[in-house]
Amino acid sequence: MDAPVRIGVVGVGRIGAMHAEIIARKVDGAQLAAVADVHAPLAEAVALQFDVPAMTVEELIASPLVDAVAICTSTDTHTRLIELAAQHGKAIFCEKPISLDLAEVDRALAAVEVAGVPLMVGFNRRFDRAHQSVHDAVVTGEVGDVQLARISSRDPAPPPVEYIKVSGGIFVDMMIHDFDMARYVVGSPVVEVYAKGAVMIDPAIGEAGDVDTASVMLTHANGAVTMIDNSRQAPYGYDQRVEVLGLKGMAASGNPPLHSGITYTADGLRGPVVPNFFLERYADAFVREWDAFVSYVRDGGPSPVSGADGRAPVVLAMAAGESMRTGQPVRVLEI
Amino acid sequence: MDAPVRIGVVGVGRIGAMHAEIIARKVDGAQLAAVADVHAPLAEAVALQFDVPAMTVEELIASPLVDAVAICTSTDTHTRLIELAAQHGKAIFCEKPISLDLAEVDRALAAVEVAGVPLMVGFNRRFDRAHQSVHDAVVTGEVGDVQLARISSRDPAPPPVEYIKVSGGIFVDMMIHDFDMARYVVGSPVVEVYAKGAVMIDPAIGEAGDVDTASVMLTHANGAVTMIDNSRQAPYGYDQRVEVLGLKGMAASGNPPLHSGITYTADGLRGPVVPNFFLERYADAFVREWDAFVSYVRDGGPSPVSGADGRAPVVLAMAAGESMRTGQPVRVLEI
Amino acid sequence: MDAPVRIGVVGVGRIGAMHAEIIARKVDGAQLAAVADVHAPLAEAVALQFDVPAMTVEELIASPLVDAVAICTSTDTHTRLIELAAQHGKAIFCEKPISLDLAEVDRALAAVEVAGVPLMVGFNRRFDRAHQSVHDAVVTGEVGDVQLARISSRDPAPPPVEYIKVSGGIFVDMMIHDFDMARYVVGSPVVEVYAKGAVMIDPAIGEAGDVDTASVMLTHANGAVTMIDNSRQAPYGYDQRVEVLGLKGMAASGNPPLHSGITYTADGLRGPVVPNFFLERYADAFVREWDAFVSYVRDGGPSPVSGADGRAPVVLAMAAGESMRTGQPVRVLEI
Amino acid sequence: MDAPVRIGVVGVGRIGAMHAEIIARKVDGAQLAAVADVHAPLAEAVALQFDVPAMTVEELIASPLVDAVAICTSTDTHTRLIELAAQHGKAIFCEKPISLDLAEVDRALAAVEVAGVPLMVGFNRRFDRAHQSVHDAVVTGEVGDVQLARISSRDPAPPPVEYIKVSGGIFVDMMIHDFDMARYVVGSPVVEVYAKGAVMIDPAIGEAGDVDTASVMLTHANGAVTMIDNSRQAPYGYDQRVEVLGLKGMAASGNPPLHSGITYTADGLRGPVVPNFFLERYADAFVREWDAFVSYVRDGGPSPVSGADGRAPVVLAMAAGESMRTGQPVRVLEI
Repeated sequence: MDAPVRIGVVGVGRIGAMHAEIIARKVDGAQLAAVADVHAPLAEAVALQFDVPAMTVEELIASPLVDAVAICTSTDTHTRLIELAAQHGKAIFCEKPISLDLAEVDRALAAVEVAGVPLMVGFNRRFDRAHQSVHDAVVTGEVGDVQLARISSRDPAPPPVEYIKVSGGIFVDMMIHDFDMARYVVGSPVVEVYAKGAVMIDPAIGEAGDVDTASVMLTHANGAVTMIDNSRQAPYGYDQRVEVLGLKGMAASGNPPLHSGITYTADGLRGPVVPNFFLERYADAFVREWDAFVSYVRDGGPSPVSGADGRAPVVLAMAAGESMRTGQPVRVLEI
Repeated sequence: MDAPVRIGVVGVGRIGAMHAEIIARKVDGAQLAAVADVHAPLAEAVALQFDVPAMTVEELIASPLVDAVAICTSTDTHTRLIELAAQHGKAIFCEKPISLDLAEVDRALAAVEVAGVPLMVGFNRRFDRAHQSVHDAVVTGEVGDVQLARISSRDPAPPPVEYIKVSGGIFVDMMIHDFDMARYVVGSPVVEVYAKGAVMIDPAIGEAGDVDTASVMLTHANGAVTMIDNSRQAPYGYDQRVEVLGLKGMAASGNPPLHSGITYTADGLRGPVVPNFFLERYADAFVREWDAFVSYVRDGGPSPVSGADGRAPVVLAMAAGESMRTGQPVRVLEI
Repeated sequence: MDAPVRIGVVGVGRIGAMHAEIIARKVDGAQLAAVADVHAPLAEAVALQFDVPAMTVEELIASPLVDAVAICTSTDTHTRLIELAAQHGKAIFCEKPISLDLAEVDRALAAVEVAGVPLMVGFNRRFDRAHQSVHDAVVTGEVGDVQLARISSRDPAPPPVEYIKVSGGIFVDMMIHDFDMARYVVGSPVVEVYAKGAVMIDPAIGEAGDVDTASVMLTHANGAVTMIDNSRQAPYGYDQRVEVLGLKGMAASGNPPLHSGITYTADGLRGPVVPNFFLERYADAFVREWDAFVSYVRDGGPSPVSGADGRAPVVLAMAAGESMRTGQPVRVLEI
Repeated sequence: MDAPVRIGVVGVGRIGAMHAEIIARKVDGAQLAAVADVHAPLAEAVALQFDVPAMTVEELIASPLVDAVAICTSTDTHTRLIELAAQHGKAIFCEKPISLDLAEVDRALAAVEVAGVPLMVGFNRRFDRAHQSVHDAVVTGEVGDVQLARISSRDPAPPPVEYIKVSGGIFVDMMIHDFDMARYVVGSPVVEVYAKGAVMIDPAIGEAGDVDTASVMLTHANGAVTMIDNSRQAPYGYDQRVEVLGLKGMAASGNPPLHSGITYTADGLRGPVVPNFFLERYADAFVREWDAFVSYVRDGGPSPVSGADGRAPVVLAMAAGESMRTGQPVRVLEI
């Protein structure tokens, strides 16, 4: 049996702490080796919980105890830490988005290439069994070449306005997953973006410079179109659906209900809401994401979510923002 | 192209009139040739509607214009008319049940055998695409040998108590379809019947000598068990489901909703009731039943629903009544 | 009880003959009074079938036996016949689209207004129970103000190329229903159209000057967006879905499966296709459409599908064609 | 805030170790205090994993560090440990079944009553949200008084024959959950049991003295009937469904699919299997079971699953065995 991949988690806020727990407890072949955070007491608390050392960010990245670094810090620090980890020859997992600055993204990806280290970007939804089944139905040819795709992502409730002010906006903080999903399932690069946005849920979101409802049409090189909608609010739960129509059929993922109980009366049928938290919906996907990372680091091969896969959604988010502001479709290089 | 099968309908009450309309308008290769009813004005009205002659029952059965007779009269007249039609060499379609008197059933079936005429009994549910898909999954071996079956039949609302007083009771007027369905889908003869009944919906049904809620366990020769439940009332609609578990899988039929619209809110999901009328649920099955009859009369081969198939559910209904009364399981000869 | 509304059907090709049958047999309060067709033998055959007089088009529209005229002829004759029927004071049912020429539409609607006769346009999908439930969930406020809508319409297989050459193209012959649906369910007028089209199914469709796959984004006055996709081919059946997201919830219509039978094995579950013919999917809707027409003619009130409702989808289809050709979003007056 | 309930787990085989993990990590207000096992190295390994002391069984039950004892040992030791824990005044959680010997059950329950300690029996399925929704629809009156219930429990694959030889047979090791479920959802005590069993999956199960396919009809005091089926093999996954029909409606729980992805082609639709492991299906239910235990210990009130609730299914399992052997229905005192 191989030695486990020893993973250090940098940044142990909500998402980083979740990754640390998954690595520590649920991933065969992985070992949580250390944790770090710019806020030292947070790192210490998580370290205590999992009985691993707390380090400074720089110590962890340089540590001989660490084979791979999971970068779960704030977005503006990602590229610097990627470069640092690459210099130390570490395998790298980086949360999405890599960066909101494409020049920085390119510099980081160049550093990774020079160092020849593995890099995987944390687009967790690719590892959801349902969305993956859509992708697989395309890849195997079961549904044929894709003509149309539809993607809906709707959060149960808006995030705090304070978050929205710094998030980069709906195309970056939310639809970026859907841009990735379109690339994942359609199988033809995107060449044009047309976007619309509106403030319909909360005026405070508009005052913060963002929209709360957004629609995007992506045109692919082969003529296929992906239509994406996002809403910062879905009162019935966390709504995540992907669908492709191909020349031979359709594949679609839906939402798991909170439970399977249904009541039937003279008023019709009645059932439960959809679970309303992404950690719940994607609990299984996060574990499978780490399984994929470990296999990739151990066995090599193409990255499950490469640097180019991390870069493209940022380009599309930028283009969507420009399209929404100008009211015009925006061409992109095939990505 | 073959000449059409000319069908005369005897008895044009609700169900007979429906058959007349289907034959007249929806069945390739069939032609409505004449109608008859002991109530002459009723026959004349239906004859006018479809532009065919009205006859007396005896005239119709003897008529050279008629190739096949559809017997849709009251149950107590079925066997006499079967015998008469057999004597005239007509192909016979007879509504279920053939009779409540097994001796009469046997005499009628003997007459059919002597005459060598085609006979098909009107168990329409065998021609429902969903229930048929359950049968087919057994016949093709897809689900393997059957271990267990479950059948639910629940009417939207009880029939008039006046009907219940003369119907023969729930096992004869309602569960007879399910006894047939058990034989249709399980593929092993029944050897034992255990039945329970209760009056839970309306005391007047009990005063009329019947129950309104009934449960039956059928044991098959191969050890498989079919569990049937009947209720004279299902507030959410006409509920008809069949399910088999076999060594290789399960096949099940469900209920079509009134429509496919669903609403999702913070209170959960909400959908429509089930259609509540058997003519609506089985509209397609009735047409396919006639298609099957026409093919059988034209092309020969085994009857889609033979005399033996018509007899067996009557035996099971009798046994169920006896079991309910005695509280004991009742053995039957393999049927 | 009121006298029945006596309806004459003009044009008894496939769709007109279907309307004639529905009127003759399934609509309480309606009576098929006469039929007409420019191809006289066709009119005579249908007349014989339903035992009504065959007339010339002009005779029928002028006939004192007729209260209402159902215009089911080819699109290019609609406005002339509307004007003629209006002059004769007849109530008018006209198949969609009213015309491909907006000037003609306006002239016909003016004639109707001058005559003060009832007019209803045949957008049958408004009368589908499932789509109507989506509309109702908006109108009652159950799902709140609409932010987003999604509409998919996909035919089982492309029509003959000869039809496509004269149909006016996918936006006119197919998506026109969806333009109507968007107006029906969203509750805010459309102000902008952005359209994409591609030839992905059959090059012969492209050679005929049309596309076979089309996507449209409609922007509504309140900021809501409707995303529509059309494909001339859906191998799994006739796919027709409508969905709205509002501030309080979501409402959606789906596709009825061919039947409800499902098989479960170690390979997963397996179920039937979707019915693949619009007359099958919308059989109930067509009857309810005529019920609505009869109520409207008898009781007055606003038209279930007014002249303005008939005109708007034509405007949107024109705008979609322009957008597809120019690659630019096209503004429309609020409709 | 209250002090946590300190729980010691006795018996840390598969199910005990799972409980230990849940208590340690997922239950607010609970604390894993110690573990014990007759196999000391196993206790030590689990103790190390969760950083708690390993003790002998007797030490743990007597320990002042422990408020409550979770008895997860083999069934034949349950009653002795219940009595011991009661003597030490500990709150008690005991895995099902309490015992296969009713006299021992009664002695243990008497000891609990004398000591006045809380006791809850581990019928985890009561805490599944879907099954609970069925129960709730009865308790709230939404579906009215229950007339009929149906329960299916089917394991993905048979257990080892060695297990079957000592398990007490299908009614005790498997259907005991369904006997509990019938009491949980129907709301009327059971008065009669009729059972059938067959060996259809594996002759080795028959040679071990058990059946692999079983059907039971329970008659309740109010006339309602519950029909239960069990199969030791369901090739499509772990199948667990409960349904009640009442005078006002139906409530039913179904199976969650492995994921929500569906593919639609000309061959129909295709979807995934059902998850095939009970720890997966009931992961959420096990956590909610502990939440209920903690609330019960802290706040008092009736036990969520009382000693009487633990005893009744044992009685029904015995009666089912007798009915199967004798071929006769077996009366039971109202339980």
